[in-house]
Amino acid sequence: MFLDEMLWLYAWYWVSDIEKVKRGSMALKKKAVTGMKDILPREMAVRQRVLSTIRKVYGRFGFTEIETPIVEHLSNLLSKQGGDNEKLIFKVEKRGEKLKEALEKGDFENLSDSGLRYDLTLPLSRFYAENQGSLPSPFKALQIGPVFRADRPQKGRFREFWQCDIDIFGDASYLSEIDLLLAMGTVLQEIGFGEKYPFYIVLNDRAILKAMQSYAGFPEEDFSEISIVLDKEDKIGREGVREELLSLSYTKEQISRYEDCLYLVKGDKEDILKLQEKLGAHLDEEVGKNLYRIMKMVEESGKGAIPLRFDPTLVRGMGYYTGPIFEVRSTLFSGSIGGGGRYDKMVGKFIGVDTPAVGFSIGFERIIGILLEGEENTHSEGKIAYLVEKKVSEEKLSACLSEVMERRARGETVLLTQMNKNKKFQKEKLSSEGYNEFVEIYGD
Amino acid sequence: MFLDEMLWLYAWYWVSDIEKVKRGSMALKKKAVTGMKDILPREMAVRQRVLSTIRKVYGRFGFTEIETPIVEHLSNLLSKQGGDNEKLIFKVEKRGEKLKEALEKGDFENLSDSGLRYDLTLPLSRFYAENQGSLPSPFKALQIGPVFRADRPQKGRFREFWQCDIDIFGDASYLSEIDLLLAMGTVLQEIGFGEKYPFYIVLNDRAILKAMQSYAGFPEEDFSEISIVLDKEDKIGREGVREELLSLSYTKEQISRYEDCLYLVKGDKEDILKLQEKLGAHLDEEVGKNLYRIMKMVEESGKGAIPLRFDPTLVRGMGYYTGPIFEVRSTLFSGSIGGGGRYDKMVGKFIGVDTPAVGFSIGFERIIGILLEGEENTHSEGKIAYLVEKKVSEEKLSACLSEVMERRARGETVLLTQMNKNKKFQKEKLSSEGYNEFVEIYGD
Repeated sequence: MFLDEMLWLYAWYWVSDIEKVKRGSMALKKKAVTGMKDILPREMAVRQRVLSTIRKVYGRFGFTEIETPIVEHLSNLLSKQGGDNEKLIFKVEKRGEKLKEALEKGDFENLSDSGLRYDLTLPLSRFYAENQGSLPSPFKALQIGPVFRADRPQKGRFREFWQCDIDIFGDASYLSEIDLLLAMGTVLQEIGFGEKYPFYIVLNDRAILKAMQSYAGFPEEDFSEISIVLDKEDKIGREGVREELLSLSYTKEQISRYEDCLYLVKGDKEDILKLQEKLGAHLDEEVGKNLYRIMKMVEESGKGAIPLRFDPTLVRGMGYYTGPIFEVRSTLFSGSIGGGGRYDKMVGKFIGVDTPAVGFSIGFERIIGILLEGEENTHSEGKIAYLVEKKVSEEKLSACLSEVMERRARGETVLLTQMNKNKKFQKEKLSSEGYNEFVEIYGD
Repeated sequence: MFLDEMLWLYAWYWVSDIEKVKRGSMALKKKAVTGMKDILPREMAVRQRVLSTIRKVYGRFGFTEIETPIVEHLSNLLSKQGGDNEKLIFKVEKRGEKLKEALEKGDFENLSDSGLRYDLTLPLSRFYAENQGSLPSPFKALQIGPVFRADRPQKGRFREFWQCDIDIFGDASYLSEIDLLLAMGTVLQEIGFGEKYPFYIVLNDRAILKAMQSYAGFPEEDFSEISIVLDKEDKIGREGVREELLSLSYTKEQISRYEDCLYLVKGDKEDILKLQEKLGAHLDEEVGKNLYRIMKMVEESGKGAIPLRFDPTLVRGMGYYTGPIFEVRSTLFSGSIGGGGRYDKMVGKFIGVDTPAVGFSIGFERIIGILLEGEENTHSEGKIAYLVEKKVSEEKLSACLSEVMERRARGETVLLTQMNKNKKFQKEKLSSEGYNEFVEIYGD
């Protein structure tokens, strides 16, 4: 059985290696690879609880789960990227003859033809392009899994981290945005946000941002540069933004016309209509109406439990998105806990024909971090430990095992383990693992 | 928000790329990387159902889930391996200055210092060595995730596939083996094996195999070579094994003494005692007693639902295991659907001190393959589709959305989508996706 696998293991794990390790001639490393982390049971319990809620809730909305390989074509990963970004990709080395050939030729650009995926959106678009014929239309996809970025390791920021995305392909109507926002809001509530950790969703459409810049008189070719400055407002304040724009030689008048737009907006959906009126021909009327309807429908059918705010300064990946964009924030901490929007042009990169697409990505690691800090209780109730004395008879052990198996069949969590000499200490440790009922089996 | 991430996405996805793709100047590939596969909703539903059963059942036995990084130190992965095995590792290229330096020096052995894990056992041992202080004792670990092998791609055999392991660290007693076997048997039953797909577990101890070879008079230094030949019996038959041993210059008498041992064994646990008597001083009495007790306890407390067979020819990774070994087979198909055993020497490779360890790995991909072939029904009952006509009023749409949200809150799966012109075809397609109730919302 599995003979080749067996031989292979045989070559790997040879008992005498222990000696080499002891002598230091083999370097087995205990720590995880730089920037990546081991996940211990307490955190895993929270992660799995959240993942199972996500699967359950998104399932009710008709999303079906798919999976793409962790390894992706390098040419897909590197399509149209600057020099700095290239450094973020973990490249997987070619093997055998192919590697030898590239090295011999000195063709060092060609040492690899694949790499670890850096997000779930690119592989999903490839997936849809490849499997479109076997998929329903609209296709509502849920994708959960690790992604990899060779970023500078920072506190709380890892090189391997999980993402959790929902996307709807093939529906150009605003029903997609509404459904996505309702799904996301429901998931956040069921995870524990809303009550314990208030959240709200910020919405915009990149066309509104563009129209405001156009109305202000900023030159169109500068829109992306300006957007990046405008997006800094929550960090450097409106005054800081103003100064930076002045230093980039934009006029006071341009800036003030831009700010006139902002003064109109408090965050309510009605502000979209006010702004639309002001912007006049600078903004396609349908854009404003569309965003207004999305907000109205989500507010009404979400029964107010999903708070929305219109924010015409929201930028969020200008080149990527083609319509409404949104970001989830919380009043309790800075930074976003998820975001997304419409990106109708991505699938076209693979199949040459554009396909409507709306997506939302949960900031999975951030949510887990918040729940862990909030000291979420991860222990299931009623964990039972059977402590078995060493000299117990076979008959007694067998009876005990049968009892344990019956309790497990009833859904109880039952640990069966040898009784230590220091029973008190053992029980204390088990208590800290969530065991609150003890059964002691003695040999007498 | 996420400004650097935003800029990065901005660089990647530039709408004008579509033009380049159309002109063929950019090569975006639709197919998954060679040897890896996209997983579509139907298969994912089966996978997730099995995974959730596994998590639930193992949880009741007191196993807690952990996770290790997919990327592992190359020195750990390559510790003591032959030339051929090196080819099975996906190496991850170094980046930046480190890569440049290795290339400039022509130090082509040093282009990478990490790689993708090829199994879950090595990372688990590293994990235990690193985190021992924060873990309970005994530590009962569940680990689920993808592993990678750059094998020749074959039908049904992929380069990225999932493994699902349970391991118990720190308990040298046979309680560990019993618990592991009961857990594994219960999981298989709850997945659907047992009734629909009968299974049985084959057990042995590598010491018994050794003792039989010693009794037969085979030279000790040949044991591993001989084991490999003996393991071929299910492929080439006992006659084939006999011939191969003869061709390797072992004597007829040696072979016949070995076969005398085999004739004693039909598979019942009582055969262990018979064999033990015959082997006399060649076998440590405790080894036989231990395996006998394990089988007895599992049979009794498993109420006969977990069929066991003693098979003294079972080999299964000689170098890796140090005690009882087991493999799960089915009467309906060839090959194993899982296996494991005791490996008390592995953790010592990391920390210099041996730690008792028993592990079992489910043949996850094989089980999924069997369930998929068995046409398991993956559709949940009662999926509802709301088809909304395009010209429906805002009021009506809002009322409809509220109704949909209420049904979802009650746990129903409700899809909301635009009504197509060819409604009949749309409903047929949705039926094939498991939707069996339709609600049509019209604009009038």
